[in-house]
Amino acid sequence: MKKFKDYKLETALELNRQDTLASYREKFIVSDEKVIYLDGNSLGRLPRATINHLDRVIQHEWGSRLIRSWNEGWYERSNRIGAKIAALIGAHPDEVILSDSTSVNLYKLAHAAIRHAAPRKKVVSDVFNFPSDLYVLQGIIEQLGNTHHLDLIPSRDNVVIHLEEVRKVIDKETALVSLSHVSFKSAFLYDMQKITRIAHNKGALILWDLSHSAGVVPIHLNQSDVDLAVGCTYKYLNGGPGAPAFLYVRKELQQKLFSPIWGWFGDQKPFDFRLQYQPAKSLKRFMAGTPPILSLTALEPSLDIIHDAGLSKIREKSIRQTEYMIFLIKELLEPQGFTLGTPLSHKVRGSHVSLRHPEAFRICQALIHPDGSEFIIIPDFREPDHIRLGLSPLYTSYSDIFYAIRILKDIVKEKKFEKFDSARQQVT
Amino acid sequence: MKKFKDYKLETALELNRQDTLASYREKFIVSDEKVIYLDGNSLGRLPRATINHLDRVIQHEWGSRLIRSWNEGWYERSNRIGAKIAALIGAHPDEVILSDSTSVNLYKLAHAAIRHAAPRKKVVSDVFNFPSDLYVLQGIIEQLGNTHHLDLIPSRDNVVIHLEEVRKVIDKETALVSLSHVSFKSAFLYDMQKITRIAHNKGALILWDLSHSAGVVPIHLNQSDVDLAVGCTYKYLNGGPGAPAFLYVRKELQQKLFSPIWGWFGDQKPFDFRLQYQPAKSLKRFMAGTPPILSLTALEPSLDIIHDAGLSKIREKSIRQTEYMIFLIKELLEPQGFTLGTPLSHKVRGSHVSLRHPEAFRICQALIHPDGSEFIIIPDFREPDHIRLGLSPLYTSYSDIFYAIRILKDIVKEKKFEKFDSARQQVT
Repeated sequence: MKKFKDYKLETALELNRQDTLASYREKFIVSDEKVIYLDGNSLGRLPRATINHLDRVIQHEWGSRLIRSWNEGWYERSNRIGAKIAALIGAHPDEVILSDSTSVNLYKLAHAAIRHAAPRKKVVSDVFNFPSDLYVLQGIIEQLGNTHHLDLIPSRDNVVIHLEEVRKVIDKETALVSLSHVSFKSAFLYDMQKITRIAHNKGALILWDLSHSAGVVPIHLNQSDVDLAVGCTYKYLNGGPGAPAFLYVRKELQQKLFSPIWGWFGDQKPFDFRLQYQPAKSLKRFMAGTPPILSLTALEPSLDIIHDAGLSKIREKSIRQTEYMIFLIKELLEPQGFTLGTPLSHKVRGSHVSLRHPEAFRICQALIHPDGSEFIIIPDFREPDHIRLGLSPLYTSYSDIFYAIRILKDIVKEKKFEKFDSARQQVT
Repeated sequence: MKKFKDYKLETALELNRQDTLASYREKFIVSDEKVIYLDGNSLGRLPRATINHLDRVIQHEWGSRLIRSWNEGWYERSNRIGAKIAALIGAHPDEVILSDSTSVNLYKLAHAAIRHAAPRKKVVSDVFNFPSDLYVLQGIIEQLGNTHHLDLIPSRDNVVIHLEEVRKVIDKETALVSLSHVSFKSAFLYDMQKITRIAHNKGALILWDLSHSAGVVPIHLNQSDVDLAVGCTYKYLNGGPGAPAFLYVRKELQQKLFSPIWGWFGDQKPFDFRLQYQPAKSLKRFMAGTPPILSLTALEPSLDIIHDAGLSKIREKSIRQTEYMIFLIKELLEPQGFTLGTPLSHKVRGSHVSLRHPEAFRICQALIHPDGSEFIIIPDFREPDHIRLGLSPLYTSYSDIFYAIRILKDIVKEKKFEKFDSARQQVT
């Protein structure tokens, strides 16, 4: 763990100077250098190129070309941008498509897989999965008449999931294993290939949610023999708020699975307007309605930036940054009552760090509403006691990390959080 | 029918001068006055105000405020914009929400309604419904194990649906009646109140697809006692390509129906991240994943324009424009072998006119690729022989109509279409 010189600002600045990806920060809008943004794992920053790219879509494609744009690129856009994502996650270009939200995509694929796997009755997930994924699975089971059941792999320590626990839960009754590649709270990273093999050995299909790994962790879907995947595009892929999600179906499964939502964009010939649905012979059968073109197009410039930087370099920096953050946490924050909610080994860790503290909520308020401090720090609070700090290597600097940890220390040491109300003001 | 002076350009120009909504055209981008756009019923024009509105969302809300924008307006945006649509369709503000695509919304509501109506086994639609709506219903029936069946109300003439045909098909076995308010091909407009009463008299629920009527035909969902509705926002509502759709659930049904897609945005407290789904106690239970904020926001300026102009004035102009177009068609196009595929009475007609001709496909090519003509006309071709001409009163002028019909006449009279290939070049 002792890979860094000391706990001083100068070391952070030195790490910045050594950072070969440092110049990529300029490709993103950083409108206020006083804001240290550690929530790129929730909503990625706006790439500069996206502004002009969107302007062209709005004014030229919509404003001038109008309906003609469907034949001039819109119709193929879900596939074309899907292919750029495919190259980031180790899939063939015709195995990834943009469509709907992550939840709706998970619904379509999980529903299809569970029906395909009949008469198997068990669906496996884990206690780390993003709740929306669990909700979607619960909903499918309910609508199938509760003949199926959902088994959640437990975690002993709330930080990692042990392989033996996985092995205990997946059995020959298992229809589908549905897991998040990187856990949204602890950042625990599964060994995709190993877990996929365990599922396949029992004859189960596997569906990975790549929301917290796509764009920051190298993924090899084909090589890992993955059946199905979904993922969000507004986190490390910087596609903008609510950008459409992607879905992946392994080539040989594409004609064996059927979407439960028979929308016209999933039909073989939508513009024939026949009265009877016939599923497309390709991945398109998993589309439903007309995709939101503006939000879809917003995603493209960021994918080009990620390809340009290269995923292995991004991962390398991400590991170095999480290591540096943990190094500082151990020294500066653990004595203040913080505990690490994230795996120590980078081999099982994504690109965010979860800190736990009984006053996490009020500490987050103090970070966002600083008093005299030179920086506004933007983290994510996650119930009940998690402060989630996301490191997005294309624009997060080592000094961002340094300042964030130093300010966290000050907030707790000087009890600056006490003036904030602990009542949650959720907008739900 | 003889309400217009003559078939001359001067009369069209006189109608333009009398048009009290004429100035609204300036609120939309018309980048090329040589393009006569008669496809606003497929993709509405870009409102000028939308450009700045989107720029603010992109640069300020996403670029600068980043994740904080969720608490500063994004989270409530689906409701807030939904309320503006509610005011256009005769619903309470808390009865309409923006979410997903029309197909996905129809899936959610129809699935919920069919389950709610158990043990009734029949779903009623008609041969005029948009195919995606039929496909979605077919998919639900298939996934329920084909215990249900879909009955389609026929049309004798492919132009209108007769009330006695509706009465024959809806019976005491009917769970759900799902119809398009205005038919996408013939523009036939149902009497919403009458059909809803017929459905209710048999104890069936009703679901209206308002895609081709919202924003151009006054709609009174509450007054008509409608149970459920969905609709597209990129046609007469000018929300931009693939803008998110809306859904309506009558207040007293909101807690009795359950979405089949249990996404986190439909949960009671999504930011509690509990492991077990609990449906929101409001319409929000019909949301699923994170909505596409850019595409969602693009919709707002147009709704303000529509409210400013007033729906009754818009409808009045729409009727006058379709009457004028039909007046010209009767005189100039019927002698050239065109037939009208749209009802003659405005009481049962939406805001587009469908022309039929055996060479419809090649005629459309000639309209789009003119040869020496002063205008490019953009219609919609619909298999097998429909030329669909959409009139969007906020920006369509009477001279647009005049020129379109005159050019259509020239194309057929001078056989200008013959040099075009009849092979469909669909991008599907």
